[in-house]
Amino acid sequence: MYGRYTQELGVYAKEEAARLRESGQRRSVSRTLDLLEYNKGRCAKCRICTVRCQKFLISRVGEDWIFLILLGLLMALVSWVMDFCIAICLQAQKWMYGGLDSNVFLQYLAWVTYPVVLITFSAGFTQILAPQAVGSGIPEMKTILRGVVLKEYLTFKTFVAKVIGLTCALGSGMPLGKEGPFVHIASLCAALLSKFMSLFGGIYENESRNIEMLAAACAVGVGCCFAAPIGGVLFSIEVTSTFFAVRNYWRGFFAATFSAFIFRVLAVWNRDEETITALFKTSFRLDFPFDLQELPAFAVIGIANGFGGALFVYLNRLIVQFMRKQKAINRFLMKKRLLYPALVTLLISTLTFPPGFGQFMAGKLTQKESLVTLLDNRTWAKQGIAEEFDYIGHSEAWKHPQVNVFVTLVLFIVMKFWMSALATTIPVPCGAFMPVFVIGAAFGRLVGESMAAWFPDGIHTDGTIYPIVPGGYAVVGAAALSGAVTHTVSTAVIVFELTGQISHILPVMIAVILANAVAQSLQPSLYDSIIRIKKLPYLPELGWGHHEKYNIRVEDIMVRDVRYITLNCSYRDLHNVLLTGHLKTLALVESTESMILLGSIERAQLQALLSLQLGRHRRLEYIRERALEEKKRLSVVSNVSSENISQRASQEVRFQISTEDSSLSPSRPVPQKPLKPALKRPSVVERATEIPTGPHDHSGIALKNLFCASPDTEALEEPPLNLKSYFAEDVDVEDDMTIREITEWEEKQLDEQVNFNNCKIDPAPFQLVERTSLHKTHTIFSLLGLDHAFVTSIGRLIGVVSLKELRKAIEGSVTVKGAKVRPPLASFRDSGTSSSENEATELHKLWDRHKSMPLPREPTPSESDEKSL
Amino acid sequence: MYGRYTQELGVYAKEEAARLRESGQRRSVSRTLDLLEYNKGRCAKCRICTVRCQKFLISRVGEDWIFLILLGLLMALVSWVMDFCIAICLQAQKWMYGGLDSNVFLQYLAWVTYPVVLITFSAGFTQILAPQAVGSGIPEMKTILRGVVLKEYLTFKTFVAKVIGLTCALGSGMPLGKEGPFVHIASLCAALLSKFMSLFGGIYENESRNIEMLAAACAVGVGCCFAAPIGGVLFSIEVTSTFFAVRNYWRGFFAATFSAFIFRVLAVWNRDEETITALFKTSFRLDFPFDLQELPAFAVIGIANGFGGALFVYLNRLIVQFMRKQKAINRFLMKKRLLYPALVTLLISTLTFPPGFGQFMAGKLTQKESLVTLLDNRTWAKQGIAEEFDYIGHSEAWKHPQVNVFVTLVLFIVMKFWMSALATTIPVPCGAFMPVFVIGAAFGRLVGESMAAWFPDGIHTDGTIYPIVPGGYAVVGAAALSGAVTHTVSTAVIVFELTGQISHILPVMIAVILANAVAQSLQPSLYDSIIRIKKLPYLPELGWGHHEKYNIRVEDIMVRDVRYITLNCSYRDLHNVLLTGHLKTLALVESTESMILLGSIERAQLQALLSLQLGRHRRLEYIRERALEEKKRLSVVSNVSSENISQRASQEVRFQISTEDSSLSPSRPVPQKPLKPALKRPSVVERATEIPTGPHDHSGIALKNLFCASPDTEALEEPPLNLKSYFAEDVDVEDDMTIREITEWEEKQLDEQVNFNNCKIDPAPFQLVERTSLHKTHTIFSLLGLDHAFVTSIGRLIGVVSLKELRKAIEGSVTVKGAKVRPPLASFRDSGTSSSENEATELHKLWDRHKSMPLPREPTPSESDEKSL
Repeated sequence: MYGRYTQELGVYAKEEAARLRESGQRRSVSRTLDLLEYNKGRCAKCRICTVRCQKFLISRVGEDWIFLILLGLLMALVSWVMDFCIAICLQAQKWMYGGLDSNVFLQYLAWVTYPVVLITFSAGFTQILAPQAVGSGIPEMKTILRGVVLKEYLTFKTFVAKVIGLTCALGSGMPLGKEGPFVHIASLCAALLSKFMSLFGGIYENESRNIEMLAAACAVGVGCCFAAPIGGVLFSIEVTSTFFAVRNYWRGFFAATFSAFIFRVLAVWNRDEETITALFKTSFRLDFPFDLQELPAFAVIGIANGFGGALFVYLNRLIVQFMRKQKAINRFLMKKRLLYPALVTLLISTLTFPPGFGQFMAGKLTQKESLVTLLDNRTWAKQGIAEEFDYIGHSEAWKHPQVNVFVTLVLFIVMKFWMSALATTIPVPCGAFMPVFVIGAAFGRLVGESMAAWFPDGIHTDGTIYPIVPGGYAVVGAAALSGAVTHTVSTAVIVFELTGQISHILPVMIAVILANAVAQSLQPSLYDSIIRIKKLPYLPELGWGHHEKYNIRVEDIMVRDVRYITLNCSYRDLHNVLLTGHLKTLALVESTESMILLGSIERAQLQALLSLQLGRHRRLEYIRERALEEKKRLSVVSNVSSENISQRASQEVRFQISTEDSSLSPSRPVPQKPLKPALKRPSVVERATEIPTGPHDHSGIALKNLFCASPDTEALEEPPLNLKSYFAEDVDVEDDMTIREITEWEEKQLDEQVNFNNCKIDPAPFQLVERTSLHKTHTIFSLLGLDHAFVTSIGRLIGVVSLKELRKAIEGSVTVKGAKVRPPLASFRDSGTSSSENEATELHKLWDRHKSMPLPREPTPSESDEKSL
Repeated sequence: MYGRYTQELGVYAKEEAARLRESGQRRSVSRTLDLLEYNKGRCAKCRICTVRCQKFLISRVGEDWIFLILLGLLMALVSWVMDFCIAICLQAQKWMYGGLDSNVFLQYLAWVTYPVVLITFSAGFTQILAPQAVGSGIPEMKTILRGVVLKEYLTFKTFVAKVIGLTCALGSGMPLGKEGPFVHIASLCAALLSKFMSLFGGIYENESRNIEMLAAACAVGVGCCFAAPIGGVLFSIEVTSTFFAVRNYWRGFFAATFSAFIFRVLAVWNRDEETITALFKTSFRLDFPFDLQELPAFAVIGIANGFGGALFVYLNRLIVQFMRKQKAINRFLMKKRLLYPALVTLLISTLTFPPGFGQFMAGKLTQKESLVTLLDNRTWAKQGIAEEFDYIGHSEAWKHPQVNVFVTLVLFIVMKFWMSALATTIPVPCGAFMPVFVIGAAFGRLVGESMAAWFPDGIHTDGTIYPIVPGGYAVVGAAALSGAVTHTVSTAVIVFELTGQISHILPVMIAVILANAVAQSLQPSLYDSIIRIKKLPYLPELGWGHHEKYNIRVEDIMVRDVRYITLNCSYRDLHNVLLTGHLKTLALVESTESMILLGSIERAQLQALLSLQLGRHRRLEYIRERALEEKKRLSVVSNVSSENISQRASQEVRFQISTEDSSLSPSRPVPQKPLKPALKRPSVVERATEIPTGPHDHSGIALKNLFCASPDTEALEEPPLNLKSYFAEDVDVEDDMTIREITEWEEKQLDEQVNFNNCKIDPAPFQLVERTSLHKTHTIFSLLGLDHAFVTSIGRLIGVVSLKELRKAIEGSVTVKGAKVRPPLASFRDSGTSSSENEATELHKLWDRHKSMPLPREPTPSESDEKSL
């Protein structure tokens, strides 16, 4: 009975399989269900139900929104837990400092040691676990979202290093921010979650989808850091993208809102708050937030903060470059990697020591406390002098018995400015947004207090007295300075969401726009500056208002000396091309005279082809064939040559190793190494030594040896390394060729025509025309994340443009004005139709050539009659 | 003296010109300055200064920011003046209605006639001046920003029609909005300003720049309409773009902020406001805006409004389609075009007549007043019944002595819902955003009032009583419904900017996201719906969470039967290809057997080529030559044949006209006609008759006649139309060929090979590979605004994908789930590497062919040694 049943099932299964093969449309779910229904067992219905539920759940798990909810939830938890730990760290420092108030020296020791230990731990921990976790992470995310693979930036190790390192760094009380690193943490989270969820099957391996998810993750990062979903989405777009898919915007909003919601709900559940409100809630009056006549003051804040932002970026870069250039410091710090963070922390915490200099700059306030007091609703300086007003809570830190509140504010701004610029160069996970935000708020407050002192009864003239609100100025200043440093406008939105008030929208917008206008014309954004320092691949922005970019054509900037290979080239040509060029992909053209572009081939593919051709396998085959012939001819003496083996093999062993190595993986694409973060150890302060990746590459070993071996027979003295294993592997044919023979054989091999059969060809590399404008080229490069594009004219390859040329051209046109902007060949193209005439003539040539020598006709491919869909 | 001076100047100028020709880099400014300096007149310095200033100003005028400021200023003025006029119109109606309170019938007449007259005028005015001004304009802007040319949509006529039509339409008090049309008006403004400023020279003719400016203009439109710069930028991005350039975002912010600023400053100057505040300022309490436990109610608002939004879009489409289908109504309305608007207005205004049914639905309030009352801070229904509370101002309209306030609200929502859906089909310039916004606010208010009635003391349990704020619910409802109808999230931001409060950010975001999730899964957005109704070219969104799109490849959807021309084809082939195909551009391949894609040629170009070949000029030349030969041979009889001319010419005249016409413009690209707005006269309610544009085109006339003339000699009976002018023009050679001769000559001409010399070829049409996924194809199409792309395999053309195929594939994969999703060929591609093997084999073939038949070598182009930059 059982046997028969099994047989029946087998038959059924076969039929089923055949049917499936025919229709090709049934899914595995329904098949399983069919089988189960056929089974007709007792608990069949139960099983069906279970299977259905399982399949349903698994298919649902693949949905984006579940992914986004999980991401939001996770990030909210991470953010909240981290905030909690940071708060505890900061409280501990205060408690220690407060408990030792009997002795100033002990107090100082406690005040200084605590952050030094935390920062040193943070620096050491990230250095050991994952040096990629150092710094903000936004520059790297920008590069990754552009399509560059920096894989080690998205590993679990980095996640752990970043989270713990950031908590310690912020817990130390240094002027560092959590916003930049949070973008990185959210991306790490998304990447890990993706990997985890791909266990359930689905589409998690798709690359373009991953990039979309990373973009959403960036929004979540900012969103759950500030509980600012809208500002988070916008900020992440501005900071990481050049072109943004609107369909992705939705994802970002969804995840960021969910994350911000959970983040704030956790605070409510923890009884920190009564209900969900803004992080730094303000309560300015709503009926008359500001007077029209105050607008010039807001504009002044904007412009001044624009200059300040540019100065901050410049200062930050200057410090990094100074530390790199100073050989002596460099060498010393290289040995003691943790010395730099410790020294910087010592310096900063000494200066903020409250009984010391700190008393003049509200040194005892944490960043959060300073911000809360700066956004305060009350006026500190009424009637022009710091009169006795009842400071509540932390506000008294700003009040010094002897010193005016203006002096305190000015000192705070100046000191915090260079401290922040210095602190952000420490090799720990840290951002610069929050410190800059606080400095901006302080500057705004300064202007606001001055205005309040100047107009004690407000400016408005119509009866009612509306006193000036310095807190509103602080809001404007914070948005303007952070906007200037990051080159974003969305800091305005972040500020509204942080304060929970939108009444100052126009002043904030005006100040942010002015600050951006000033800062953008002076310096790159902080993130772009770091990208350049770290030498990450980037494409500069075009800027705006520069007309030149519309007049430069691809033909003016392209490299005309293109390395290409032809369809009927020999291996020798391939060899030569590989030796001279260094582009990652090579153009494949029909022939040298037609130059019709057929596609592009990756360098690694060609190297594999070449090593396959000159490889040991083929040589052994050749030997076998020769031996066969020999056997036919002689068939008498055979055992003599075996004595030579060991002797010769010892000479050739390096060669053998290399060829063996490459023949094992002839078509495997070579893994691209991620770029080394040049700034990963600023304490070490070394200039990243840049070796052209050509022959030192993994894939290059085989090739290099081949090149060494073929023309001259040097470097063969090395001892046999894995000779035994080699002989154990392959024993049936003996490699009895001398070096001379091998050279001869290789020379012969090199003259053969290349067989592209096993080669992966990209049949549609991106092509441009000579007359494509620089503007359009830039758009296309940044839209599609290209690395290079071929320039063709009626199918003929005439040049190539890579990121490098484009970068040069743009930077030439953006930074240098006047005569230098005009590239060398620009003058030739003013004569309107000349180029199209050229095109026509060239086409004509081609046409004539074809006319004079028609190719034999082949029938049109049969599938041309089919019409799909 | 004077003569010598002139001479000197002439010599100088010549030298100067020669030098210029050599260097080729000098600008006209410096040349003028040189000349002036040479002049050495008395006021030379003055003149230099003037010229310099002029040039400086003109060059500055070209800057983007001046353009944006002007645009913002203009739009703010337009918006403010329009608001002013609308307010006057509405006041006039109220005044009329109030003055006639002695007689209800007269009151009714006044109440009804006024809007009917205004709407009828608006409809008639736009119909006569520019039918393109009808409707919202956002769908058209979306299409234009996608790269489609709809030129008549951006003319001065349309501007005037839209502004005046919109003012009248909104002045009538119908439930119409100004937001959509404002996007269109701002774009019109930008286009006109661009044209105006190009008079000063500069780069205003660049197309990609124009599109960037239009995108900024859309932001300005929304921004100055609601005084909401951030929301405006985001809304315009969501509504009009698929991919957004972040560098453009800045422009949008700048212009929209400036515009909103001016718009509000005008209100302050006009003494409407004391200072700059939000348009619909609210004053909810800040300390405890809402309780966590109220969130479910907000979620309910979101979900319900999601369904409501989808229903609105469906209803709107249903009305349009119903009116189109009903032949009888259709025919009647076609005759009286203004009847439909008048009837609709009559119906709506009758129902809102305050003493009539209007008393139950706050009919006497204008849209603005309703919104203000709905966002009111007070609770209308305390203790569950509409108790006597002191209504201030307009709020009393909601209070009816007999009827509960809930009934009033429900009636308001239901009536306004269908009224708005109906009113937006009237052929006047109008948007649907504001009506929908008000309905959403009313629904939110309804829920809020219910909650307030249910929890009279608020939900919060910890001591303090925080009563529920129904106004907050109204804010949430307004954002959710408008978000659902337009499929945008940025309505949340608009709502914050409109009310000046951001305290309800989380409820609003949650509701908007839920509403979007529901509405997007049920219906397209209102704008996409209109795009489909109007049959504008569009590319549907991919939606999210649909995995299929990652599995469909281009090879599954492409059309394999591509029309192409070869380099060595004859005119007959060209003729045949043009007769059969209907794509706008045709592929140019090397030869039928190689199928290597060389470029694409526009259809019009080919038609021009063909008509040039068969044109009168060439025929006359042929006749001339023949005559010359004849003369040589005979040289005796010559004046006999002249008698035949008039007789024959009368037969051939139609043919002559056509060829003459086409020979005058052989290489001029044929202007593309903008698409006819199918909805421009919904009163006429006709189904747009769709004739394939092939032979009926402007460019097709010449060709059609050629085709008619060459094989069969029909349609030659028409009388000579411009025979005289024709003979006057060209008299030296006489066209004495008979029809038979012409046919023979043409047959001979058709056998000649095509000379592509004078033809404009696009040498780099966009190419895809067979294995490009649908997802990537969609991305590329929407990124680059493509209309079609060729599918190639190692340079060989194997198919073509146009917007149509892509649309079909996406709509198949998005709307139909399950079995139908899988395209016919999808099952074949699961076998991993098969396709790459195919590629290899095909390449192999090519390679073999080349090996067996090497082409003669030509030297490499000399410029390959040059390296630019």
